Amino acid sequence: MMAPDIHQLIARAQAAYVRCIDDGDLAQWPAFFTEKCVYKVTTADNYRRKMEAAMIYAASRGMLIDRVTSLRDANIYEQHGYRHLLGQPFIVEDDGQEARSETSFMVARVMRDGTTDLFATGRYCDVYVREDNGVKLRERIVVCDSSRIDTLLALPL
Amino acid sequence: MMAPDIHQLIARAQAAYVRCIDDGDLAQWPAFFTEKCVYKVTTADNYRRKMEAAMIYAASRGMLIDRVTSLRDANIYEQHGYRHLLGQPFIVEDDGQEARSETSFMVARVMRDGTTDLFATGRYCDVYVREDNGVKLRERIVVCDSSRIDTLLALPL
Amino acid sequence: MMAPDIHQLIARAQAAYVRCIDDGDLAQWPAFFTEKCVYKVTTADNYRRKMEAAMIYAASRGMLIDRVTSLRDANIYEQHGYRHLLGQPFIVEDDGQEARSETSFMVARVMRDGTTDLFATGRYCDVYVREDNGVKLRERIVVCDSSRIDTLLALPL
Repeated sequence: MMAPDIHQLIARAQAAYVRCIDDGDLAQWPAFFTEKCVYKVTTADNYRRKMEAAMIYAASRGMLIDRVTSLRDANIYEQHGYRHLLGQPFIVEDDGQEARSETSFMVARVMRDGTTDLFATGRYCDVYVREDNGVKLRERIVVCDSSRIDTLLALPL
Repeated sequence: MMAPDIHQLIARAQAAYVRCIDDGDLAQWPAFFTEKCVYKVTTADNYRRKMEAAMIYAASRGMLIDRVTSLRDANIYEQHGYRHLLGQPFIVEDDGQEARSETSFMVARVMRDGTTDLFATGRYCDVYVREDNGVKLRERIVVCDSSRIDTLLALPL
Repeated sequence: MMAPDIHQLIARAQAAYVRCIDDGDLAQWPAFFTEKCVYKVTTADNYRRKMEAAMIYAASRGMLIDRVTSLRDANIYEQHGYRHLLGQPFIVEDDGQEARSETSFMVARVMRDGTTDLFATGRYCDVYVREDNGVKLRERIVVCDSSRIDTLLALPL
């Protein structure tokens, strides 16, 4: 069996990532990142103008763990769920150790009463690092297309 | 040319499956399943609580054929169409003969008058069996995120 | 490293194509097509009845370049953006030089004020030609599911 190439490695990591948020155990979410990492949620407007402002910002796996813990305490899962659909990753750069990729997403939000709406669209601007059994995120900048993203943004994107 | 791996086999089977429902000949739909099979549509709530209740249930390819025939007689296609978008399959388990996978979906519904809405989101919990030229579904449990799925659920998911 | 097969070549070309429209430089869009090409946007109804009517029609890369130039002059980008999500390509036929494929799409439209809606769903009916570093479109017929597609259809699909 051939080793999967970088497109496949990233596509599979993404499938596991969204499953973790949508159906799985959110406590596993930080494990998709390297110890030192950047996770940021911003808007296309801010990203284009290279503005630092971000709706969510974390600079380590520890900060991601804190975030997940507070979400669990607030019982966010009782209130709504997400469904992520991702496109194929576009490989911007790959030096054999790290790869820079961009991936489009659409996220539907399903409220407790069953109402479903298109919650967010955008792209992940990622830096993946190769590890023994796959790839991990050293950086994920979630660039939301709309600037009207719910400020109560709760579950991770 | 290398043989496609299980991720690719499943992704390609899924592409054919949704094409059959969205654009193709619905009469071909049962052919994606093995002779003895389970096809079930349920909600995330029921699935989580391991409740047996299902909106649609079929236990053989013959039952799927019956369903398709009655849909055709009712001229369902005249009334609306679907558009499925699927994520990458996540391989839960693979013993070389059978593979268990989960795949996210979003389905848009397009009515006769052109109105389009996000009809359903959820995931397929599948058991695929390897066959000569690909894979077939031995089990598909369609787990809808919302419990407010249209009870007139007509075309298959 | 194995050469990517036709599924992978097309999936990667599609990822680059939608990135060009959604996030990139629209001026690059015509480069996804061969010099002589067909690009057409039509409805499922027209397509089924083999009617010639099309909402957009171009018969060469030059016509695509003209279209992009006029969009830029009209400053379309200031008004809204798209987010395309595509399914896996279904390979209808492949003779080693050209491949015929069908790919489902959903497109969300994000207006300047942040409003997001499901703008269009449908499928690409494509003819791809193999070239040195990948594949190019010799024909793309964009078949929209709904016949109520915005006549001000601006950015390419």
